[in-house]
Amino acid sequence: MLPDASAVRARWARVQDQLRADDVDAMIVVKPQNTFYLSGYTPMIYSHPVLVVLPAVGDPVFVLHALRAHSSRQTSLITDIRPYGRWAREIGPDHWWQVLADVLAERGLSGGRIGVEGEFLPLNHHRTMERALPAATFTDSGPALMRARYVKDAAELESFRIACEIADAGMDAALTAKRERRSEVEVSAAAMRTMQEVWSTRHPDRLAMDFGNLEGGVFNALWAYSLVGDRVPMNSAPPTTRRPAEGEIQWTVIWTAVDGMHAENERSAAIGRLDAERQRAFEALLAIRDEAQDVLRPGRSCADVYEAARAAYRRHGYGDYLPGRVGHGLGLGPHEQPSLGPGENLVLAPGMTLTFEPNLRIPSFGGLQHSDSLVITDDGFEYLTRTRRDLIQV
Amino acid sequence: MLPDASAVRARWARVQDQLRADDVDAMIVVKPQNTFYLSGYTPMIYSHPVLVVLPAVGDPVFVLHALRAHSSRQTSLITDIRPYGRWAREIGPDHWWQVLADVLAERGLSGGRIGVEGEFLPLNHHRTMERALPAATFTDSGPALMRARYVKDAAELESFRIACEIADAGMDAALTAKRERRSEVEVSAAAMRTMQEVWSTRHPDRLAMDFGNLEGGVFNALWAYSLVGDRVPMNSAPPTTRRPAEGEIQWTVIWTAVDGMHAENERSAAIGRLDAERQRAFEALLAIRDEAQDVLRPGRSCADVYEAARAAYRRHGYGDYLPGRVGHGLGLGPHEQPSLGPGENLVLAPGMTLTFEPNLRIPSFGGLQHSDSLVITDDGFEYLTRTRRDLIQV
Repeated sequence: MLPDASAVRARWARVQDQLRADDVDAMIVVKPQNTFYLSGYTPMIYSHPVLVVLPAVGDPVFVLHALRAHSSRQTSLITDIRPYGRWAREIGPDHWWQVLADVLAERGLSGGRIGVEGEFLPLNHHRTMERALPAATFTDSGPALMRARYVKDAAELESFRIACEIADAGMDAALTAKRERRSEVEVSAAAMRTMQEVWSTRHPDRLAMDFGNLEGGVFNALWAYSLVGDRVPMNSAPPTTRRPAEGEIQWTVIWTAVDGMHAENERSAAIGRLDAERQRAFEALLAIRDEAQDVLRPGRSCADVYEAARAAYRRHGYGDYLPGRVGHGLGLGPHEQPSLGPGENLVLAPGMTLTFEPNLRIPSFGGLQHSDSLVITDDGFEYLTRTRRDLIQV
Repeated sequence: MLPDASAVRARWARVQDQLRADDVDAMIVVKPQNTFYLSGYTPMIYSHPVLVVLPAVGDPVFVLHALRAHSSRQTSLITDIRPYGRWAREIGPDHWWQVLADVLAERGLSGGRIGVEGEFLPLNHHRTMERALPAATFTDSGPALMRARYVKDAAELESFRIACEIADAGMDAALTAKRERRSEVEVSAAAMRTMQEVWSTRHPDRLAMDFGNLEGGVFNALWAYSLVGDRVPMNSAPPTTRRPAEGEIQWTVIWTAVDGMHAENERSAAIGRLDAERQRAFEALLAIRDEAQDVLRPGRSCADVYEAARAAYRRHGYGDYLPGRVGHGLGLGPHEQPSLGPGENLVLAPGMTLTFEPNLRIPSFGGLQHSDSLVITDDGFEYLTRTRRDLIQV
């Protein structure tokens, strides 16, 4: 579900705690995931800049194009909305940076230390901010905001469960299509058609949009792609008309977003009987996963999980095929921090949502990967994608 | 279709002409649309940086994560591929910026004038480039690359036609669902299910992916949303369970991407009989479009089209409801330059692809907007979306 006013206030407070700890006076937030996180509002199309000014103390202000004034007034939980530009009878100052400068002046922060999202903010927007706020100094507060987002709140967790449910329905359809020996494109389209059906009939009160780039919008994010045999090591690639042969492995990747929260469900399936090499690899990968997953619990670090996986890969004779990471955060981003990778010292805590996906890419026959979405609980973790996760044969 | 080697070489040459005209020695390209434009390759997921180094003279180099080494070797038309990072047995230098510095040193350009994409390049990437190339100077070459993209080549135009065809099929399904008085979500899902079917059966050899942000990927971009009655002035918003009442106007927006090329098909439909105010507005909007569209031809500027629209809005008594623009470029971006707006002096030329979408947003009853994808021809333009574009009543 979308956050209510008190949930959003708690988010502001969490980010503000981080900003104050970093001696930042205000943050200018432009990344669509983050403006949604702080407001519960999405214009869905982001080609006119959408900015939240979040002071370290006090309520935030929304700076939006006149085109979005009406919609933001309907649904934003940030209620101080300042339009720029003009659209029909809605008229503000010409440029977003004029409104931004006004807002910071009002708060007495024109000469303050201003946080921005270094991992996202386009260079030209930053240059414009520097010109509009000549007395300000700028610093990267992207990590501060991300720290506030690591542990999901009740609204996010509830949406995440539904994202997992829809992904499972998509995977059921994909497995049926694989049983019928369908092509990569046909498997993908079957999963996507089913997910549209499940969304529109079972969960029509949910947002299925996503946060794209600043040139457009992503109206719907119930997606699948499938790769067969020697195409699996491409990892991510548009699906083709390639059909599986008996004894190959077909891999399907499903990503969903519900109320902005992303889930992953990925499955490898044996098409008929596997030869000895593939059979052994599939069994080994399942064992590697089962051994490493015990470390997914509060108090252990992301690197601990990766090192447990590394040891298991070696134990099963696949040490040369260790991937760069074995999972990553899921949230308003589909690939958000943290990585379950080497050197990531972040300690797991209840309410973090992750995908766990040890995998093998072996040029001689392709690749293998199950990926499940999970939440860290008080004493371990819970898988929220529920497709069978054994050696699937169709 | 995807470009072949000679088409991609022509793209390099067009961009290089622009770079030399700006005295730029090399461009570092990071924006997914642009790396695809220059290589014909998409990893679909962009969370590990993908960079093209395009010198002003000579062939470009691809810098990619080890995870993408295999797939890029399969399909990229840039053949000089330099992986960074490690994934299983594929091992390069740890960081992309190390490879970048090596490539520029090889070409003798470490101290050169380097173009970047100011409208996209994340601030932190830019800082990293500045540290990796301390003797270089940086400048914004985003506009230079965009200028090279304005006129579409044969591969792009062919893909654009299919994007329009799939969008039309989606709109047919949406209109059928409106006839059945379906909700916003149901209309949207019906269109998306149909477009999956058309893609997977009629055009399965086409890419239906899109370019998202740097946190993930967009596997599929055959999208729709629909808004009813007083929700139309929200312009873009996730669809809901709202159903239309008789006499309301329901608006559906369809965006598709085929081989990266975006099309739009948007239609307002009267649900039953309209009252006099809505009827008059709908008829006026169609007249405004018909009068302004005569200016869509080679030799006229984008601003000329807007001014023709402005005059027509006034003539029909809707001067107060003039939108901020009446269309925009379509291409590898869904909202790319140019805007059909005030002050845009770009002159239209054959092979430019645009959407044309005069519209009305009137708080008392909602809004009206047909949007059609078109190509500028030698002596005018051709609409490539072909859904009926009159006063649609269902």
